[in-house]
Amino acid sequence: MGLQVYADRLSQPSRAVIIFCKVNGIEFEEITVNLAKGQHRSQEFKEINPLCQVPAIVDGRFKLFESHAILSYLACAFPGVPDHWYPADLSKRAKVQSILDWHHNNLRRGAAGLILNSLLAPALGLPLNPEAASEAKKILKQSLSQLESFWLKGNGKFLLGNLRPSIADLSLVCELKQLELLDEKDRDLLFAPHKKVLEWIENVKNATNPHFEEVHVFLYKAKARLNKQQSKL
Amino acid sequence: MGLQVYADRLSQPSRAVIIFCKVNGIEFEEITVNLAKGQHRSQEFKEINPLCQVPAIVDGRFKLFESHAILSYLACAFPGVPDHWYPADLSKRAKVQSILDWHHNNLRRGAAGLILNSLLAPALGLPLNPEAASEAKKILKQSLSQLESFWLKGNGKFLLGNLRPSIADLSLVCELKQLELLDEKDRDLLFAPHKKVLEWIENVKNATNPHFEEVHVFLYKAKARLNKQQSKL
Repeated sequence: MGLQVYADRLSQPSRAVIIFCKVNGIEFEEITVNLAKGQHRSQEFKEINPLCQVPAIVDGRFKLFESHAILSYLACAFPGVPDHWYPADLSKRAKVQSILDWHHNNLRRGAAGLILNSLLAPALGLPLNPEAASEAKKILKQSLSQLESFWLKGNGKFLLGNLRPSIADLSLVCELKQLELLDEKDRDLLFAPHKKVLEWIENVKNATNPHFEEVHVFLYKAKARLNKQQSKL
Repeated sequence: MGLQVYADRLSQPSRAVIIFCKVNGIEFEEITVNLAKGQHRSQEFKEINPLCQVPAIVDGRFKLFESHAILSYLACAFPGVPDHWYPADLSKRAKVQSILDWHHNNLRRGAAGLILNSLLAPALGLPLNPEAASEAKKILKQSLSQLESFWLKGNGKFLLGNLRPSIADLSLVCELKQLELLDEKDRDLLFAPHKKVLEWIENVKNATNPHFEEVHVFLYKAKARLNKQQSKL
């Protein structure tokens, strides 16, 4: 049995794993776990990941979840993956890991917290929480500043001044893409001070297309549905 | 110039890195960055880590921060470190990474959020936040349940049913040790349903002593100071 990827394309880490497989020609079967329908809490999915998170993979008899762990595993386990995604060089790899760790408590906490608490919560059976959304927005703004001034410093096209993307570029840009769900003016205000971040998002998209846009179609459709619902209010 | 570790022993990821070095006979110079005195925001420390977080290391010309990235780097860069800390085997390493990623958004968010918002904030010039503390406590309780029923399942002494500790064991136990700062009754209530977690904390302590206790002395002293302050109120 080949690689199976359990994912919901509305989840940004799911999108990162799917795009990574497609860009690197890794054959896999995508199995949709619809979060809005609560399928992540089904007995069937608990057999794959008892902690009920997507994405998760099954590779033969090996099961794994947490997208960063999955991406680094895939980069090492599939021989055709170019080194720039997850460098074998110790210091370069450590820097990629440092960004991935930073991501959890900064960019992810800000972006996912904002979208969940200001928009998506009702679709998952949770209440909206304006205070938590506002707290998340603060974290997001600081994270965008740190991306612009620190992680993207230098003249490279990608994080750490690199000429080619790593799994950190893909993971962080997929995180940021969920901000498409925001009202356009709010989104523009967030990104306006961060020209480098905007360029970098384009660079990652261009380096991983056509897969990047194909996998994000699902998000764009969700945005259209959301706009339609809001215009009815 | 040898390895330099910039740390505050009141910070749990700092403790994990220091204990790891000591247990594995890695020579290093410890440079204290006193968070309560705001030394992490000094110009001097910004030269080491512009994002102002501890721990951070300097190894020759190489600078790195984020404790998980540091621990995996040290485990690979210093040849004497036994394999169990960060296994070379791909699947075993991926499982360790999965726990480290889970840690960020679960156990760390719960434990650090609870302690910061209910106790430590004033020492860092921030207000206490009972609502955030209560939210963090919920996350902590769920994380402890997941540790007990999932990560510690089986008969091994360590995470994943292993017979020897990994960097994930050390990182997570250092995180939990900060709960020593809580009132004893509150702490006992939190841990009472989780016998395996309590045994595992002892196992990690025993596997890394005398260094584990020596590095935690600083935390026990902080607890004594806190008790003294509270008894004056």
